[in-house]
Amino acid sequence: MKKLINVAIVGASGYTGLELIKILLQHPHFKITYLATTEGNTTSSKLHPSLFGIFDLPVQKIDFKQIAKSSEIVFLALPHKTAMQTVQELMKFEHLKIIDLSADYRLSLNRYKNSYGEHLDSENLKQAIYGLPELFREKIKNAKLIANPGCYPTASILGVSPFLKFLNENEEIIIDAKSGVSGAGKKCESNTHYVTINENMFAYNPLKHRHEPEIEEKLEIFGNQFHKVHFVPHLVPVTRGMLSSIYIKINNLLTDPLEYLREFYKNEPFIRIRENPPTMKDVAGTNFCDIFARQSGNLLYIETAIDNLMRGASSQAVVNANLISNFDESIAIPKISIVP
Amino acid sequence: MKKLINVAIVGASGYTGLELIKILLQHPHFKITYLATTEGNTTSSKLHPSLFGIFDLPVQKIDFKQIAKSSEIVFLALPHKTAMQTVQELMKFEHLKIIDLSADYRLSLNRYKNSYGEHLDSENLKQAIYGLPELFREKIKNAKLIANPGCYPTASILGVSPFLKFLNENEEIIIDAKSGVSGAGKKCESNTHYVTINENMFAYNPLKHRHEPEIEEKLEIFGNQFHKVHFVPHLVPVTRGMLSSIYIKINNLLTDPLEYLREFYKNEPFIRIRENPPTMKDVAGTNFCDIFARQSGNLLYIETAIDNLMRGASSQAVVNANLISNFDESIAIPKISIVP
Amino acid sequence: MKKLINVAIVGASGYTGLELIKILLQHPHFKITYLATTEGNTTSSKLHPSLFGIFDLPVQKIDFKQIAKSSEIVFLALPHKTAMQTVQELMKFEHLKIIDLSADYRLSLNRYKNSYGEHLDSENLKQAIYGLPELFREKIKNAKLIANPGCYPTASILGVSPFLKFLNENEEIIIDAKSGVSGAGKKCESNTHYVTINENMFAYNPLKHRHEPEIEEKLEIFGNQFHKVHFVPHLVPVTRGMLSSIYIKINNLLTDPLEYLREFYKNEPFIRIRENPPTMKDVAGTNFCDIFARQSGNLLYIETAIDNLMRGASSQAVVNANLISNFDESIAIPKISIVP
Amino acid sequence: MKKLINVAIVGASGYTGLELIKILLQHPHFKITYLATTEGNTTSSKLHPSLFGIFDLPVQKIDFKQIAKSSEIVFLALPHKTAMQTVQELMKFEHLKIIDLSADYRLSLNRYKNSYGEHLDSENLKQAIYGLPELFREKIKNAKLIANPGCYPTASILGVSPFLKFLNENEEIIIDAKSGVSGAGKKCESNTHYVTINENMFAYNPLKHRHEPEIEEKLEIFGNQFHKVHFVPHLVPVTRGMLSSIYIKINNLLTDPLEYLREFYKNEPFIRIRENPPTMKDVAGTNFCDIFARQSGNLLYIETAIDNLMRGASSQAVVNANLISNFDESIAIPKISIVP
Repeated sequence: MKKLINVAIVGASGYTGLELIKILLQHPHFKITYLATTEGNTTSSKLHPSLFGIFDLPVQKIDFKQIAKSSEIVFLALPHKTAMQTVQELMKFEHLKIIDLSADYRLSLNRYKNSYGEHLDSENLKQAIYGLPELFREKIKNAKLIANPGCYPTASILGVSPFLKFLNENEEIIIDAKSGVSGAGKKCESNTHYVTINENMFAYNPLKHRHEPEIEEKLEIFGNQFHKVHFVPHLVPVTRGMLSSIYIKINNLLTDPLEYLREFYKNEPFIRIRENPPTMKDVAGTNFCDIFARQSGNLLYIETAIDNLMRGASSQAVVNANLISNFDESIAIPKISIVP
Repeated sequence: MKKLINVAIVGASGYTGLELIKILLQHPHFKITYLATTEGNTTSSKLHPSLFGIFDLPVQKIDFKQIAKSSEIVFLALPHKTAMQTVQELMKFEHLKIIDLSADYRLSLNRYKNSYGEHLDSENLKQAIYGLPELFREKIKNAKLIANPGCYPTASILGVSPFLKFLNENEEIIIDAKSGVSGAGKKCESNTHYVTINENMFAYNPLKHRHEPEIEEKLEIFGNQFHKVHFVPHLVPVTRGMLSSIYIKINNLLTDPLEYLREFYKNEPFIRIRENPPTMKDVAGTNFCDIFARQSGNLLYIETAIDNLMRGASSQAVVNANLISNFDESIAIPKISIVP
Repeated sequence: MKKLINVAIVGASGYTGLELIKILLQHPHFKITYLATTEGNTTSSKLHPSLFGIFDLPVQKIDFKQIAKSSEIVFLALPHKTAMQTVQELMKFEHLKIIDLSADYRLSLNRYKNSYGEHLDSENLKQAIYGLPELFREKIKNAKLIANPGCYPTASILGVSPFLKFLNENEEIIIDAKSGVSGAGKKCESNTHYVTINENMFAYNPLKHRHEPEIEEKLEIFGNQFHKVHFVPHLVPVTRGMLSSIYIKINNLLTDPLEYLREFYKNEPFIRIRENPPTMKDVAGTNFCDIFARQSGNLLYIETAIDNLMRGASSQAVVNANLISNFDESIAIPKISIVP
Repeated sequence: MKKLINVAIVGASGYTGLELIKILLQHPHFKITYLATTEGNTTSSKLHPSLFGIFDLPVQKIDFKQIAKSSEIVFLALPHKTAMQTVQELMKFEHLKIIDLSADYRLSLNRYKNSYGEHLDSENLKQAIYGLPELFREKIKNAKLIANPGCYPTASILGVSPFLKFLNENEEIIIDAKSGVSGAGKKCESNTHYVTINENMFAYNPLKHRHEPEIEEKLEIFGNQFHKVHFVPHLVPVTRGMLSSIYIKINNLLTDPLEYLREFYKNEPFIRIRENPPTMKDVAGTNFCDIFARQSGNLLYIETAIDNLMRGASSQAVVNANLISNFDESIAIPKISIVP
């Protein structure tokens, strides 16, 4: 029988924190022993009334020693900048493994500076592993610090990477992405006000979004070749869900892009190749990335769908936790969507 | 170790059929061995693309002998009238236990005739047990045929029944209910067209809905006293969810209606008494019925929330299956909501 | 030819401020000459990007003298408390007529104190006229200060008042109301966050909402008899719209409640008696109040629908402006809904 | 004083039929004298309950002679194929001008055959004018038969056409479009069921949609050069609205694409150049096409927003009716959006 591993969630008040709790509660080998937020002094069911009667752990003010004492794996669901301050401290405890859901350890130093400003923990940055299992599974298994990927990069990279080898040197990648509102976080702002986004849709930060360099960097590492990415995200009136519509020019005429994808991803438990363009809802609540592709002349169109809070954050984080614990990566990872 | 019980789902194409599949796939002691629809000749993942890669059983045209051969428990998710024709045949097989999600066995013969017309199986109707565990748990355990309650009656009865003893003889019960669109079924009709119900809300069949007599009859059985129920349902632009706002006049001044409810339901695993009016979403995807009550003068206001497809149909059906199998009724029954 | 009347909108940044602008822009006899907010220093199209290219007036910081100089009618769309401070000053200018959309002048002094706290302008409170044309049309015509009704009271009073004469002395009135999210205002708060209210619905402040005494008081004035009102509002995932479901006990058996309503409201341009329960959307964008009623035994059920921002605020305010200007009250008042 | 022109709407039961009615009711020089549907025998307010009390004209079964007798301009809002049978007959009446909202007269004969099959009225097809005022205004003024553009082509062509001259000969155009559900029509089908599309989004007919050749053909006519268009439409959970995200490669570095657009469209009353990506809602209920553009390297990204039922159908049709009547094209054309 497998041992029970104690885990902590730091940043338990947000949407990804709640999703982590929900998944981990169903996990046979992980036990949540510590919850913290910046303010502490509450309980899990006060933060998240849907947990009332199910899970009612005290929520502490962040305390590094307490974290180290109570857990072996730490999930960090904190804003960037705040995250790196915490990681820096936690990395000092040898027995801890850290899965950071923020942007702080996803980029190389220079790209981070360009997109987010100064980095305060460049030492640990060097050893952080980008937690996208399909691309970096073996490295993840031995990591001490995992940078859990952003939602847009996850949806985009999983769609583009199989086709990288067909791209000419100078070809650029166009990504028209669509995200549900939960991706913008729990904080109330003009764009997350119901009246703003209901019956509405719009692009934001087109060609200037911070996830653009994250996609470029990871594709370059995977494919050994830089390609410029043009990234236009849209906000959509759904709570959870993400589509990534990818347009690339290739010279080859693929006999059947779907068959090619099936072969490419044949051993992957969380990739599904679909006969029709994937829908947001078919993957909602799961760790699946559903993929479709079609070619017309030189244009290859790829569409991927993920749940931004799950595959784009929390369930992917637990897959990573499974991997660093030498568990089967599928253990307790949701596969059944919330349809209808 | 418990034996594995084979179960069939007849009427697998609708929303409640899908919810049954999703719950039963997670059940350690039930195994889905047979799926059928009126037309057959398909598979579970063609009917429900979200199941692609997860569950891909053939779906048959309904065949009584095959059902009997392949299963011990049958879930029927068929339209009323069609249901009773099937039940009548299946009841002939001694080893079968039947959980019917239609309206056909919920009412006494006379009430059925008034609301739905002729009944073709009055014999079996007599022995059907109304599958609301909080009221009829012991009878359910020994039933061969269970009439799974309607969603509106479930939400309403669980709110009213604790307070029945405070009602004067002639008092009437007012119920203003609100239902998500999935309650209207998968068939496309004017009222389920996105453009009709999005950004909209309206009452339908006020004071004339078929669930009115179902509520009246079950409350009378439970409380040994008839009370007229005035029932006004509303259609709400959400996919799943149901609120039942109940208004009754009582003479007693309750010290604390919430405390009273906590005591009344103290041993119930699927009732939560809330400090604030319950929300649809906190119970979405679960079998919970959340309840709130407040008194002002002689008026007692009670608000309940359920997921119309789960507690109002499929998860309650699996609870009933657990009970007739002498399992713990909570096994595999979802408690974690889909919030956010 | 009618003269052109200059009007000011003070509090132009919110939803009701925008609705006022949109209606007044179409009005042949009113001309918006002054816009103000607490902070000023902007323009109408910066506050409301949908007005870009259509209406681009500077928006001032509130200045009483400027208001008085530039206009004859002032619409106030300010929060309560702030409103009364402004009204008090504006009332000193003899030529000004004021239509206040806040709660500050809707209640008698005592009721105001109980619900909102101290009142700073009890002098002007005495002469304020409640701006519900169907009940107080003649008084409105001669008013200097109009207290524009709340959305819930408008929807409720128009449904109950025709039937007041059938109520026994001690009968109480039950109102189960449903409001779109815009009623909660433009300020971002937990309840107006998209993720909170999307796919959700819940009651708030049940039996304790501030509009309860407003309904009670106006019904008492109209019917010369006090009746306790039990009021339970619900928040619904639509941007605009309101239903008021009213339950009262009457002794009379009405031959046909709809025919009775048609007669009662026969000369009213903004009341429609419907053959079926009214829908939120059929009145969205208009000043209509649609009404349905049905009796079952002694219970009379009435359902009304209004647009909370229009009949519940801005279009009713412009009707009142028409009345105090001796114009036909229907001039420029929207009657065509935004369906689909 | 201008004369009053009698107009007929044939196909009055759908969403575009209703929008036509709503606009024409506000028009000072057009008078609706005839309404028809395939089945007839009803009234406008029975078809569209929101019109109750406002507009209650009888609705006839289609009768060519009656149409000719009662009107000078005919709006046809019929399905394709049905439309051409009607147009063919109506064209025989010399005094009639026809505005056809179907696809039947939008394409050259060959393209029509490829996309829709046989054409039964190739004679009249030759003289039909494509009713996009910004491109073909002068021809529209003298037309007898106007082919009102599709919603996707309108949104796409208005975004691309200003930049055509910067495209190299072989450059292809990528369009990622998003449409509200009303674009799919009033007929209830699986994709328009509330439960299917609520909380969901997906591409459909990618690279194979019938509007692709319509866009290609009109751009070729306007720019004297064929460019392949790759068109991927998505269905979005809003009732009305459309975004068209356009990606093209150009060699020139534009100093300021927005300034260029402002100059290009400087005399256009229904084009707005926005500083930020346009939102669906800012144009909802209006005839505006809002446009934004940004360049990054050689990639030019253009985003346009229209209301699919208005600029994409009915309000554009009335603009065309204004033009063929020698009226100011802006008369009675909605400019004020339904925000909030």
